[in-house]
Amino acid sequence: MQIIGERINSSRKPILEALQRKDVSFIQDEARRQEEAGSAFIDINAATMHSQEPEYLVWLVKTVQGAIQAPLSIDSTNAQAIQEALKAHKGQAMLNSITGERKRFEALLPLILEYKPVVVALCLDDQGMPGSVEDRLRVVSHLLKALGDAGVPHEDIYFDPLVKAVSTGTSFGIEFLESVRAIKKEFGVKTIAGLTNISYGLPQRKLLSRAFTVMALAAGLDALIIDPLDQTLASLVKASLALLGKEGSMRDYIKAFREGKLIIS
Amino acid sequence: MQIIGERINSSRKPILEALQRKDVSFIQDEARRQEEAGSAFIDINAATMHSQEPEYLVWLVKTVQGAIQAPLSIDSTNAQAIQEALKAHKGQAMLNSITGERKRFEALLPLILEYKPVVVALCLDDQGMPGSVEDRLRVVSHLLKALGDAGVPHEDIYFDPLVKAVSTGTSFGIEFLESVRAIKKEFGVKTIAGLTNISYGLPQRKLLSRAFTVMALAAGLDALIIDPLDQTLASLVKASLALLGKEGSMRDYIKAFREGKLIIS
Repeated sequence: MQIIGERINSSRKPILEALQRKDVSFIQDEARRQEEAGSAFIDINAATMHSQEPEYLVWLVKTVQGAIQAPLSIDSTNAQAIQEALKAHKGQAMLNSITGERKRFEALLPLILEYKPVVVALCLDDQGMPGSVEDRLRVVSHLLKALGDAGVPHEDIYFDPLVKAVSTGTSFGIEFLESVRAIKKEFGVKTIAGLTNISYGLPQRKLLSRAFTVMALAAGLDALIIDPLDQTLASLVKASLALLGKEGSMRDYIKAFREGKLIIS
Repeated sequence: MQIIGERINSSRKPILEALQRKDVSFIQDEARRQEEAGSAFIDINAATMHSQEPEYLVWLVKTVQGAIQAPLSIDSTNAQAIQEALKAHKGQAMLNSITGERKRFEALLPLILEYKPVVVALCLDDQGMPGSVEDRLRVVSHLLKALGDAGVPHEDIYFDPLVKAVSTGTSFGIEFLESVRAIKKEFGVKTIAGLTNISYGLPQRKLLSRAFTVMALAAGLDALIIDPLDQTLASLVKASLALLGKEGSMRDYIKAFREGKLIIS
């Protein structure tokens, strides 16, 4: 199971302000702490810089890679920003994200073939947000073929089933969990998700997001886009992996305990 | 989903001491608090009183039923204690537990037919503890037929797949979760479990037990034998049920929030 550290996102006010003043040490510190907490990739997002997104995303690539070894997840919907960021990135980046939408796919495929990033593929196409497990399986099937035909190895693709808020539909939690199981069973590919959306519009969001993270891991989710500095969540993740018998997880759990990093309340 | 409150157990020192001095108000207070926390049944266990177990179990039935409306779970392996407790109990009790072991089953079946309790059936027979999902399905199949043939309605039976500590086998967590799914899928019957054993021998046991409770609910477990006064666990249970779209669960979640009962940390 891999953690993608989500903190360096310009939608967060402290990050936006650090970007605006190009505060190298603030950003590098954010990156370092997430790497030390075990992140396999550090996500970077400068979307709220609008027309200046390409410039700031490249600045983030250089600034963060100046401080840490972990590769970055280039988090953008702007093809120009993605291209410049991938070009500036050393080593294999993650591209977050492509979709089955024809225009977006066609704009990004050449960049994928040129820079060979690990790809996050959202289960979304020109028919819109998925409304069922079957909608997601259709998008996975289509994208797996299209990417495979273009030469992208299946092991470089993570599918994101897309979480929808349970406040807008009581079945959306179950639908997501069943989608993770079905995608893995049908296609044997990797899955990834950010889960905080599940609790949108409800009180005590962290409580819901934590419980849902445990459920998603039990369903087989392979990668989590989370705040790795949330120690209660990180402790639940470690406990979950140990309970699921994941390789090395019991050793990690005991090690985290010895280091005083397992938080209960 | 139903909660069985597990606190009135003579293996807990404060309960043992209250039993020894026949402290009515202490026991009734324990019962009341568990009922108020939403327990559908209050478990009573006096096993550590040994030869005096029947006397003390009957005393517990009368004492607890003098204070609350919720029925009791008669938790014993002593046929005489079970018989006297069921006889003293008003309304439909729960019998915790029978197994597929021939002698135990034959001793308890007449009591089940006479007093008609809800029955907890452990997935265990004369071949010993279950070593696989299939072992459990075999016991369920056998017991369902034996109880059904004797006239016990299927809706009055809860099967306990039996949790084994992950410290003794890394696959035991997954095996339990798959057993819950398989029992429900194959036979459409209800499942129940106490989950604290999962974390035996490991540090930060509560962290593991909480995460496993969330996983078990996602797998479809119908009843939980827990300490309903552990507010963090109770909050995770409420969050889990809301995430799983269980009937009435979102309303319960919001209500618990408004009453200040949802604990995060």
